[in-house]
Amino acid sequence: MKQTILSTAIALISGLAITTAVQAAADEPIQPIKPPASINIGMVELGKKLYFDPRLSKSGIMSCNTCHNLSMGGTDNIPTSVGDKWQQGPINSPTVLNSSLNLAQFWDGRAADLKAQAGGPIANPGEMAFTHTLAINVLESIPAYVREFKLVFGKDKIDIDQVTLAIAEFEKTLVTPNSRFDQWLLGNKAALNKTELEGYALFKDSGCVACHNGEAVGGNSFQKMGLVEPYKTTATAEGRAGVTGKDADRFNFKVPTLRNVEMTYPYFHDGAANTLTEAVDIMGRLQLGKKFTKDENAKIVAFLKTLTGDQPTFTLPILPPSSDATPRPTPFK
Amino acid sequence: MKQTILSTAIALISGLAITTAVQAAADEPIQPIKPPASINIGMVELGKKLYFDPRLSKSGIMSCNTCHNLSMGGTDNIPTSVGDKWQQGPINSPTVLNSSLNLAQFWDGRAADLKAQAGGPIANPGEMAFTHTLAINVLESIPAYVREFKLVFGKDKIDIDQVTLAIAEFEKTLVTPNSRFDQWLLGNKAALNKTELEGYALFKDSGCVACHNGEAVGGNSFQKMGLVEPYKTTATAEGRAGVTGKDADRFNFKVPTLRNVEMTYPYFHDGAANTLTEAVDIMGRLQLGKKFTKDENAKIVAFLKTLTGDQPTFTLPILPPSSDATPRPTPFK
Repeated sequence: MKQTILSTAIALISGLAITTAVQAAADEPIQPIKPPASINIGMVELGKKLYFDPRLSKSGIMSCNTCHNLSMGGTDNIPTSVGDKWQQGPINSPTVLNSSLNLAQFWDGRAADLKAQAGGPIANPGEMAFTHTLAINVLESIPAYVREFKLVFGKDKIDIDQVTLAIAEFEKTLVTPNSRFDQWLLGNKAALNKTELEGYALFKDSGCVACHNGEAVGGNSFQKMGLVEPYKTTATAEGRAGVTGKDADRFNFKVPTLRNVEMTYPYFHDGAANTLTEAVDIMGRLQLGKKFTKDENAKIVAFLKTLTGDQPTFTLPILPPSSDATPRPTPFK
Repeated sequence: MKQTILSTAIALISGLAITTAVQAAADEPIQPIKPPASINIGMVELGKKLYFDPRLSKSGIMSCNTCHNLSMGGTDNIPTSVGDKWQQGPINSPTVLNSSLNLAQFWDGRAADLKAQAGGPIANPGEMAFTHTLAINVLESIPAYVREFKLVFGKDKIDIDQVTLAIAEFEKTLVTPNSRFDQWLLGNKAALNKTELEGYALFKDSGCVACHNGEAVGGNSFQKMGLVEPYKTTATAEGRAGVTGKDADRFNFKVPTLRNVEMTYPYFHDGAANTLTEAVDIMGRLQLGKKFTKDENAKIVAFLKTLTGDQPTFTLPILPPSSDATPRPTPFK
């Protein structure tokens, strides 16, 4: 009986502590990452194979994972990507991690969601350089894929909507909960040290948080790159204006997520900033009109590194082999 | 007591059956794949990261896994590989699966073992186009690698021998036991059907087995490509002669393993044969002076597909991020 009362008391106190922590988190401009809801596991497994399958490219050597490498923070860690025949991409590959939390996809938001995004690189002549029709021809020629698509979608024919839907479903699983910052938000006050907390205070007080907020610490608005001072770049990407046609949207880009930012270097749409120190300095001056001291900069960087969450953990998929009827890749044609 | 006697009798009969099966397997020219012995797990885990790390290339986008893709039978499934700046490789990338069973590495056997092989592509200007010194500079600049190398090798400095030793140790784990053919060798007579057994009989009786034998069904000798009839190819690779300097070794290549051959298309050192049907036909004519009928060819192909074993299963490694001091890749320089 005494044990029961004690347990109840502990449960009540714990409940109170959790409620307080959750309230505290709700007061913060950043929210902890939640695991994805309503995932179709069969579709995820199919989408994972497709994400890793280079046969969706003309050359047969590029997959989604080439530029959004899940061993490296969902990016390729180079300024702009290498496309078919070693073409230089016009823009930095954004991380696929937590991309389900973005208000839209691509730096200019031209795709409404992950499904709409997934078909883009496959058919982009500067990226995977294939066509949707040819990609479907390849998949239709592989017996194990035909069976798996039928199992997942219940249809006799594979189409590009099924392909992009499956890839998007896999991508929804690529969230990174449990960062030290999220542990702190959820009430573990020992998760961050003094420097990191001071960095977070600076991040909020200096105004970084005006754009980098919410569950993804970004990804939920378009903003002008070079608000106070113009951003100098050789990149030709004009941002949101390419989608809206409005001159006012020139150099408006989707605010990138800062989740796992320690792993997603180099930074900005042109990948011009190699280090977090450099990125924080440029952001402070160009977006906020503020020159951070070396000490302030270091504290903000320390805070940013607490945003690295648990990376997606899964078995490397084994792809079903091509059949005699599968059209062969043409890397050198 | 009765139960004990019965159990003993079953154990004796089972033992007899296993002995008979093992004897039968010993009489066959092909032996079942054994799991690797004496593996250093810490070294394997480090080697796995290095195998997937594109920072060992000049461009920052090519890893061992690019051309020896473990999702695709340890190959890239294209005739000859794509190297740095999209250079066309001179030869087909052989599978890394079961490569620990080869008598030597590369098609011409110029590397004695996996460790000697692993350093080659990193420093080959037509492949990863880096240097060993630059690769070590990169690794030395990444704190998590420095710690892991120290843990595994107990030394303060990383060197290329540690890198290639760790990659080789990981590659030793990439064996593929438990194919249906191995199940049959080990006594499960139901593992192969009539067509497959007829294919195996043809494979032995026609002489394929003279070169394709042992645990890897190949990989244990050098043989002339085009023994009875010359092999016509535009590939310039001259084979073993490049290593020995002997004219008699021209067009002598290491006999490739036929393990997982269903997954390792296209075939031959120039990757010119797209299908097993084509490869079996050419091998029959050029190496054995024998024209297989359509029916014989199909039976041999059916047998070859029973050589697909359990593919290596492991979690995609997460690579430690570069530090501010890490030299950045130069894909476009």
